[in-house]
Amino acid sequence: MKNLIIASTSTLHSGGYLDYLLPELEVLFKDTDEILFIPYARPGGITHEAYTHKAATAFKKVNKNLIGIHGFEDPNHAIRQARGIFTGGGNTFVLVHTLHKLSIMQPLREAIFTGTPYLGTSAGSNICGPTMQTTNDMPILYPSSFKTLGIIGCNINPHYLDPDPSSKHMGETRETRIKEFHTQNTTPVIGLREGSWLQVQGESVDLKGAHSARIFLQGKEPFEVESGTQINIA
Amino acid sequence: MKNLIIASTSTLHSGGYLDYLLPELEVLFKDTDEILFIPYARPGGITHEAYTHKAATAFKKVNKNLIGIHGFEDPNHAIRQARGIFTGGGNTFVLVHTLHKLSIMQPLREAIFTGTPYLGTSAGSNICGPTMQTTNDMPILYPSSFKTLGIIGCNINPHYLDPDPSSKHMGETRETRIKEFHTQNTTPVIGLREGSWLQVQGESVDLKGAHSARIFLQGKEPFEVESGTQINIA
Repeated sequence: MKNLIIASTSTLHSGGYLDYLLPELEVLFKDTDEILFIPYARPGGITHEAYTHKAATAFKKVNKNLIGIHGFEDPNHAIRQARGIFTGGGNTFVLVHTLHKLSIMQPLREAIFTGTPYLGTSAGSNICGPTMQTTNDMPILYPSSFKTLGIIGCNINPHYLDPDPSSKHMGETRETRIKEFHTQNTTPVIGLREGSWLQVQGESVDLKGAHSARIFLQGKEPFEVESGTQINIA
Repeated sequence: MKNLIIASTSTLHSGGYLDYLLPELEVLFKDTDEILFIPYARPGGITHEAYTHKAATAFKKVNKNLIGIHGFEDPNHAIRQARGIFTGGGNTFVLVHTLHKLSIMQPLREAIFTGTPYLGTSAGSNICGPTMQTTNDMPILYPSSFKTLGIIGCNINPHYLDPDPSSKHMGETRETRIKEFHTQNTTPVIGLREGSWLQVQGESVDLKGAHSARIFLQGKEPFEVESGTQINIA
């Protein structure tokens, strides 16, 4: 049974790395003391070692041992053996490029579908949808495909931002960008605000956390769903 | 001799479509009354016809006739025959996908290198660098390559935005994104603020318009260049 948390962000403005999620992570990973970390999104170009150290420091607070996948000779085997997996944020193009290059997108999908508890934040959440095509990131690498894990049936837009009515900037708002996505694609999109996450258990997808989320369906007006409700389109 | 304007945006908050650029366009296109328009970036998913109508209305103000490339049976031939070309903004992935699919990236490059006057705004400016990898757009289509025209030696980041020190949003700033680009690529990047443009004449690239621009070189601290100066890294 699928058992995962798909979070908009790792870090709230008011807190430290993963702080606001720690109580959830104790429950999600209750059956294991060791978690496999996928650091390939490399926020700011940080090394795999430095990123793993940062994430491990946060997980120590709930007495969990985090091990970076980059240290394994066979990452496919590491995923199959893992009893818990966390993919951190950063650049989604770099993450997806690496997952395809190492041929571990499919093993990761299988692990999650067969019940390995999974946490994704930001880029690590983007990959839970059918494609990475609603990422906010810059295309700094060319992945062999935009296809991702397809754990849920809709795409994620993490760090969702409402339009700022006072802005004089003429770049597209997030809502405009997602509507452009729907001129070319049919996949539903969930705009997840920072502090919100999806809790997936089996086929049930619930919105949790601080905010409502914005749902975009092709050809329909976007609408809000409240925290605490089940999301049927996912 | 190359002769083009690479503009950050088509539209300033204070004005109508292309208004602030009209005096420049009269000079750039002084030798022709007819301009070929490339509407493939389709802002907001607008049709080619509607987008061409919008751009043609602006060009009418300077007595120029704009014709959409989508009306030609052979777009390659249309580019070779054109005496002036304008590529409008929208979604850079959609634009680049279409240019590669129609095999007109190379003819467009040749036309500009052999002196056909060219105007690019936003996505139409992004494609003037070696790659589209510093676009701000959402990857709503998968282009067969991220390579673009390479008219100048550096990439463009249009609609460049300075970090907002009061923001509580945890998504990456534009500067962070461009620095991430330089963890994977060596191409210099020009952050062009709205109201600024590059005037390219032969091998000379000058910054024009309302603002300074921010230059990003791999491994160096970013720095500002003032409007009116020649940019040597481009």
